[in-house]
Amino acid sequence: MIDAKTILNRCDALANQSSTRTGIERVYLSPEHAAVNLQAGHWMQEAGMTTWMDAAGNQRGRLEGATPGLPTLLLGSHLDTVPNAGRFDGILGVMLAIAVVDRLRESDATLPFAIDVLAFGDEEGTRFGTALLGSRAVAGTWDDQWWTLADKSGTTLREAFVEFGLDPAKVGDAAYRSDDVVGYLEAHIEQGPYLEEADLPLAVVSSIAGARRFALTMTGEAGHAGGVPFHRRHDALAGASEVVLAVEQLAREAGAIATVGRLQAFPGGVNVIPGRVEFSLDLRAETDDVRDAVWAQIQDVAAEICTRRGLAFADEQTHGAPAVVAAPHLRDVIRAGITATTGEPDPMVLFSKAGHDAMAVADLTDWAMLFIRNGRGGISHHPDETVTEADVAVALDAFEAAVRAYAATYAA
Amino acid sequence: MIDAKTILNRCDALANQSSTRTGIERVYLSPEHAAVNLQAGHWMQEAGMTTWMDAAGNQRGRLEGATPGLPTLLLGSHLDTVPNAGRFDGILGVMLAIAVVDRLRESDATLPFAIDVLAFGDEEGTRFGTALLGSRAVAGTWDDQWWTLADKSGTTLREAFVEFGLDPAKVGDAAYRSDDVVGYLEAHIEQGPYLEEADLPLAVVSSIAGARRFALTMTGEAGHAGGVPFHRRHDALAGASEVVLAVEQLAREAGAIATVGRLQAFPGGVNVIPGRVEFSLDLRAETDDVRDAVWAQIQDVAAEICTRRGLAFADEQTHGAPAVVAAPHLRDVIRAGITATTGEPDPMVLFSKAGHDAMAVADLTDWAMLFIRNGRGGISHHPDETVTEADVAVALDAFEAAVRAYAATYAA
Repeated sequence: MIDAKTILNRCDALANQSSTRTGIERVYLSPEHAAVNLQAGHWMQEAGMTTWMDAAGNQRGRLEGATPGLPTLLLGSHLDTVPNAGRFDGILGVMLAIAVVDRLRESDATLPFAIDVLAFGDEEGTRFGTALLGSRAVAGTWDDQWWTLADKSGTTLREAFVEFGLDPAKVGDAAYRSDDVVGYLEAHIEQGPYLEEADLPLAVVSSIAGARRFALTMTGEAGHAGGVPFHRRHDALAGASEVVLAVEQLAREAGAIATVGRLQAFPGGVNVIPGRVEFSLDLRAETDDVRDAVWAQIQDVAAEICTRRGLAFADEQTHGAPAVVAAPHLRDVIRAGITATTGEPDPMVLFSKAGHDAMAVADLTDWAMLFIRNGRGGISHHPDETVTEADVAVALDAFEAAVRAYAATYAA
Repeated sequence: MIDAKTILNRCDALANQSSTRTGIERVYLSPEHAAVNLQAGHWMQEAGMTTWMDAAGNQRGRLEGATPGLPTLLLGSHLDTVPNAGRFDGILGVMLAIAVVDRLRESDATLPFAIDVLAFGDEEGTRFGTALLGSRAVAGTWDDQWWTLADKSGTTLREAFVEFGLDPAKVGDAAYRSDDVVGYLEAHIEQGPYLEEADLPLAVVSSIAGARRFALTMTGEAGHAGGVPFHRRHDALAGASEVVLAVEQLAREAGAIATVGRLQAFPGGVNVIPGRVEFSLDLRAETDDVRDAVWAQIQDVAAEICTRRGLAFADEQTHGAPAVVAAPHLRDVIRAGITATTGEPDPMVLFSKAGHDAMAVADLTDWAMLFIRNGRGGISHHPDETVTEADVAVALDAFEAAVRAYAATYAA
């Protein structure tokens, strides 16, 4: 049977499939993608599954239920990475899913549904800039406008499909019919420090925050540093600085998360008062209501700053995604799996500030997620990302127990 | 005799000598420089002066005193400009000086000193990046390191001297001996709104602020917007924003002037917490003590911010000039000139936040300055810079009266 040590070894083995010598980078429809599909498919077969690559390049494996052809429970995550990635983000979830199937088959479990393990080919969007391509195909929400997306070398998504041996005309075949699935469960390393801080190995995910992103501009009046006294200034940078601090304070008070990642003052002369500042805002919260309330407060504060300082504030939304909420009955299944494993009667609940395949699969079926403690301060999207063998062992037990719990309630 | 109308016409005529079709740009040792020297020399001769171009390309004119060969009072300002300049900055002071000499000669004034009118060829530093080249030559503080300074086209200062018909080896000849001068008086348009706000035409200058400029860096820790909660962030931009606002508040409270003109956050991803911010500070005050006290306060606040937020602050001074203070007995002369003209017993006193030729001449002799109201909100270094004919008339009377007042006290 596959244990935690084996899972970590498998994560190490997949980390070798990288387009870069240092760090890990493995993008959609690349030779490395083909290599990890082949390897994962091999492990799926060892676990007793029939395997195939779907029409969007996702690797799949199926374990039939009590009788062949039953609706299927989807277990999955992704095998692609960001540049200079860690080795667990996505990958760990796929390896856990394969191990759970291995255990179920070893124990001759009789399940009221089939299980499909999905190893998505694109969650991060590293190659084509648009994320969740693998899971969108599975969910049946593929958008034909994506075919002309191009990577850094100018290769379009359509060309990359053909190079990978896929038929763009058949991408629709990757989609499930809703009636054929009974839900989606995903295990994933936490991309934050909350479990580590709480000294707990596992958490239930309540929702995945939908980020809104804005391009912001504060406009004032440029002028010479020596010539314009304070009372006549309309300093766009002083105004923008107030906004940056208000963003931090308002988001913090609301339990949301907000980041001004980009900011530049113009014209940018050492002795010129800034006449314009361009900056960005990334805003996330457990619910869209909380997020949008914080945004409204930020706008109010910006308006007050503009009135006081004689400035103008403009915002343009550049990205917006709704929060997706886990299905209560599947959250209960994850919770039951954790409780059965750790004895903790009331497992920790977290909302995910990062995106996941579950966001796309949510259009197809109910979903829930299990978070596993990130071992080093929540470091994510970085080679230092880490998990302990002990936590993987607990996660494997809990994930298996969750599937068994769902089987019990589903049958009843 | 030359009146205010004539002075304005002369400023208009010189504005036509520009290397650009739109706006005014006239730089050191250019064909336009030669043209305005020739024109100003002509007007100096009409005013009864003997004229010559000195070894640094400054145009000069001399009116002898009661007997030939007396020590000389210097009256001057500059004829060069910034890019897209106004037509009065520097030029007005030269035209007023010529007009004062014209009046003194017309009235057959008997003066206890000669008068040299100096039309400096470089104050702004537009061409070679280093300012006050003309007045430094006159003050005897020329630095041979400057010879290799190059303009945008790669021409060095040395090459430009030769092209202009000057001998670099003889630049020292432009310098006065201290014993040969009795002081320096300069009239200049105010590069700020204070006289306009006070509804007054003229002010006495108390000192010229010496700017200190710094390259500042705030360093924190980059991280993913979705993954790092507020209590674990070391957001360099949030810290730098606090510094920007503290700079504004501390300078304002101290009566100093401070500008953060340049600021950029790195790495600059929309969903990445800024790990580093690079920004600039330009700091000016009436005295070096006030300026340096504000800088010390800013450093203290930055240190407190760093402790609280887990950031590091670094500063590097990129420019530093001491404030130069007007000589009390020459300030009295300017004040007397204003009072004699406007009847105002206690004329307004301003410190200059912009640099002037007087800063360089201060190394040679005592100095004082007269400021003339800027007609449109203090706009400077811009084509909209303006003065009224009425103010020029008052300035001319006051500047003449100041010279006569100095002659009276000097003789006594």
